Amino acid sequence: MEDKPASSQETSLDEIKCFFDSAPPLKDENSISKKLNEFLETNSLSAGNGSKRVVCVTSGGTTVPLEQRCVRFIDNFSSGHRGSTSTEYFLKAGYSVIFLYRRGSYQPYCTSLPDDPLLECFELTDESHIQVNPSHSDAVKKAIGEHQAAVKGGHLLKLPYTTIFEYLQVLQLIAISMKTLGPNAMYYLAAAVSDFYVPWESMAIHKIQSASGPLDMRLAQVPKMLPVLRNDWAPKAFFISFKLETDIDILLKKADTALRKYKMHAVVANELLTRKEEVTVVTTTGNISVRRDKTKGVTDVESPLIDLLVEKHSGHIEDSYRCS
Amino acid sequence: MEDKPASSQETSLDEIKCFFDSAPPLKDENSISKKLNEFLETNSLSAGNGSKRVVCVTSGGTTVPLEQRCVRFIDNFSSGHRGSTSTEYFLKAGYSVIFLYRRGSYQPYCTSLPDDPLLECFELTDESHIQVNPSHSDAVKKAIGEHQAAVKGGHLLKLPYTTIFEYLQVLQLIAISMKTLGPNAMYYLAAAVSDFYVPWESMAIHKIQSASGPLDMRLAQVPKMLPVLRNDWAPKAFFISFKLETDIDILLKKADTALRKYKMHAVVANELLTRKEEVTVVTTTGNISVRRDKTKGVTDVESPLIDLLVEKHSGHIEDSYRCS
Repeated sequence: MEDKPASSQETSLDEIKCFFDSAPPLKDENSISKKLNEFLETNSLSAGNGSKRVVCVTSGGTTVPLEQRCVRFIDNFSSGHRGSTSTEYFLKAGYSVIFLYRRGSYQPYCTSLPDDPLLECFELTDESHIQVNPSHSDAVKKAIGEHQAAVKGGHLLKLPYTTIFEYLQVLQLIAISMKTLGPNAMYYLAAAVSDFYVPWESMAIHKIQSASGPLDMRLAQVPKMLPVLRNDWAPKAFFISFKLETDIDILLKKADTALRKYKMHAVVANELLTRKEEVTVVTTTGNISVRRDKTKGVTDVESPLIDLLVEKHSGHIEDSYRCS
Repeated sequence: MEDKPASSQETSLDEIKCFFDSAPPLKDENSISKKLNEFLETNSLSAGNGSKRVVCVTSGGTTVPLEQRCVRFIDNFSSGHRGSTSTEYFLKAGYSVIFLYRRGSYQPYCTSLPDDPLLECFELTDESHIQVNPSHSDAVKKAIGEHQAAVKGGHLLKLPYTTIFEYLQVLQLIAISMKTLGPNAMYYLAAAVSDFYVPWESMAIHKIQSASGPLDMRLAQVPKMLPVLRNDWAPKAFFISFKLETDIDILLKKADTALRKYKMHAVVANELLTRKEEVTVVTTTGNISVRRDKTKGVTDVESPLIDLLVEKHSGHIEDSYRCS
């Protein structure tokens, strides 16, 4: 089905308010706000042409509970590989990063580790000392050392979520905190956000009983938060969103539609099977194909991708201060 | 809705065959069969009154893909805490354990670790040595040491799954391998198996497009594998199944129905909120309440639970050899 014209699909602040009002209350709201404020203060972050830049990277899939006391839920597939690897390159480029990630998804500097690092990378010696398996030694040192340096240095703030409700609630808190940064703020929205959900109030309180017939479910569309974030909460920030599709024809068309409809500065188009080799950055001035460069010993497509986006962000900041 | 009488709900071998025929083929089928045979041979496992016992512990939730190139899926909540902790007590009781677990769920000896053990339990020293954070030292040593001892000693075989298809396919391979063990085999079916699924053939090949309206889904019931496993694949084995509900009234009624309908030797009834403190073991001779004993320094309800089940399994083995 075709996307409707923007005018009829724009989400109003009222719709978002209604969604938040009916959502389960966010736990630790005060503690999250405090962490955000401390993070921005520690880095003396503020707006300004020469000031430090901050990127909010969202990463991993969101879940949609099907029951209030959640036994079953619908999950959106996303390992968090894109968001966590991109975070490493943003840190390398001197950005402060707020990493809003799905619990259990990939963490920065950890994508080359085995599935279960504790049990696969370590062993107990006869003297009951713990030692790192030599074949994993470099990966483990990178994970622990660089991750620790980024967090302790105050350059990386990690905030976890699980459900679509938590994701949108914490994203709103981040937007409120980052508003003062103006064009120095970037949103790099790599999380795979659910399109459909079961409104909390109409949700079964107890576990859905398996009867003898098929189960029919009606899911409502999640209101699009992006227009509100873009236009109301962070009107000066630099915005990157993502499209993931399994059909390349649908992909570029949808990326272009999203670019215009939501006034993104760039949309990163991912095809499910080739996304670790190549992405297409869709902008109003044309599409740029970004490929992993195997010859340089750099193995991530995120390396040239973040280089390109940092350069475009610089242009955005310069334009903002020239106009003001 | 009431469960129908057993006669009309029994699953036939034909239905199961049909389900397997329409499922995506299992990867590594040969390698899994080989591991199973080696595991049983290494332990010289066979039927016999004094012979070693083997338990197949299933653990974690199963997923139901909504698309063939899977972006969205429905997940059943289960951390795998029950299955992984029970595995520790079965090993302690001298059993060999085949641990059929959901990728990413809890592993034996690891339930007391933080969410992200690598990043939370270790640090890099100034000399770039990796060291364990003293506050987590005991938990990390237990996880690495005891896990390693069980796997290397050949007492623990771990087999992972993600989807409902993989879960049922691997369970079938296990049942084939374990059939020769007769009454010495136990099935401890703690995994949270999806009740509903989308048949592979009727599944969307590409990602479901978010249109402007709500999404209506019709899910079919997963055929009940339990009667086939119990009656055809492992007719002499000792069977424990689980019920998890959020409503205590529904819980005991359903546990009792399952006990009779599937001819289980015991059904462990879990209420979602209290399940780490207390469970009810439902048997044909009455219900037994099993509680975590805080006074003995043993903190797991699985300790008295496995004691009870091992004793009942002994009775089952004796009965089997008396009758034959």
